[in-house]
Amino acid sequence: MRPFEQDINALNEALQEMGALVAQSVHRSVLSLVEKNEDYAHQVLRDEARINQFEIQIDDLATSIIAREQPVAGDMRFVVVAIKINTDLERMGDLAASIVERSLASLRQPQLNVEVNFTDMANLVESMVLTSLDAFVKRDAVLARGILTSDDGIDKLRNQINCQMIELMKKDPSTVERALDYILIARRLERVADHATNIAEDIIFMVKGIDVRHRDRAELAAASQS
Amino acid sequence: MRPFEQDINALNEALQEMGALVAQSVHRSVLSLVEKNEDYAHQVLRDEARINQFEIQIDDLATSIIAREQPVAGDMRFVVVAIKINTDLERMGDLAASIVERSLASLRQPQLNVEVNFTDMANLVESMVLTSLDAFVKRDAVLARGILTSDDGIDKLRNQINCQMIELMKKDPSTVERALDYILIARRLERVADHATNIAEDIIFMVKGIDVRHRDRAELAAASQS
Repeated sequence: MRPFEQDINALNEALQEMGALVAQSVHRSVLSLVEKNEDYAHQVLRDEARINQFEIQIDDLATSIIAREQPVAGDMRFVVVAIKINTDLERMGDLAASIVERSLASLRQPQLNVEVNFTDMANLVESMVLTSLDAFVKRDAVLARGILTSDDGIDKLRNQINCQMIELMKKDPSTVERALDYILIARRLERVADHATNIAEDIIFMVKGIDVRHRDRAELAAASQS
Repeated sequence: MRPFEQDINALNEALQEMGALVAQSVHRSVLSLVEKNEDYAHQVLRDEARINQFEIQIDDLATSIIAREQPVAGDMRFVVVAIKINTDLERMGDLAASIVERSLASLRQPQLNVEVNFTDMANLVESMVLTSLDAFVKRDAVLARGILTSDDGIDKLRNQINCQMIELMKKDPSTVERALDYILIARRLERVADHATNIAEDIIFMVKGIDVRHRDRAELAAASQS
């Protein structure tokens, strides 16, 4: 295996490990709310520090690959997209932590007497995060495009929660503060999904970019033979 | 001037030019709504393409600096943060375009009979975007910290619009759809501000990182003399 491929494997592994931790944090942030479990909440806050360390390590790894291997065209784009994905993952970690802060605050208030479907939303977000990293490692634009479709599902689930909360607030003004907390938590989950969508768009652009460059190179090769 | 400094100047200039275009787009997206001006809306959609081109150019410039100059420590971090800021700016451009789409849709509906203060929010967001780039170029953590304070102002303005719209919806259910449009536009402006806040946090981390590394180097120098 060439050194460049070894480096890329290390980069892929680190991003997937970070992504798994981020997906788990998002999941736990919602469980802390749904199952009223403070342990999950504190675990998310502890893991945020690890996610931040991952970000620095991965930036360092990506830039050392650029400096050492001087990749060109599609390979360079791959490393740049890795830096972008790294940033998205770190911000998802921030969002999980901010969901937890709100969840801890809401655990100290009387519970709303309604079933709010955060679980489906969290499951979908989690799978979007993991799929986006899979699509990156495999440089798979079709897999990435599937994430854009999932994002419509997120919009729908988020709108359901929004409508449910607005109805509740209209019916019983004493719920307004707590219902807005729930709207805010749904909004943060949606923003995690937005980051997964950003990653998917970067991957589609990257793969398209590589194709274009490959075609250019093939055309160049064909032209140079004539 | 060293080649590295020339490259960094070019990078700074490109980011500031892109940032000015993004700030203008955000401003125009809100004007298109407030002044019911479709021309502004179409200008924003045209400028989004230019913003996307900037993103590619700046990524290329940043990665060629890394490959050619092989910067270390603080200088490397600066270039990596440039790539991150570039990503944030491009996503702000996306948000301006999505505000415009919603604004164009809302222009085709009967107007709500209320004054909604989008202008203050847009002005504050615009200044946050420009200040974040200024802080980056000057590597100024104090300036960057000011942006975090502005973000509290954004939260306040966004909450005002939210509360106003919720009240309106409660009073007159026929406004629900249009009021939700306004809530969504305010949310997108808030997300532009979130990106400026992300940039500010990256700058603070970068400057702090540089300080730490500089101290380490001074300590190393001192130790090597003993």
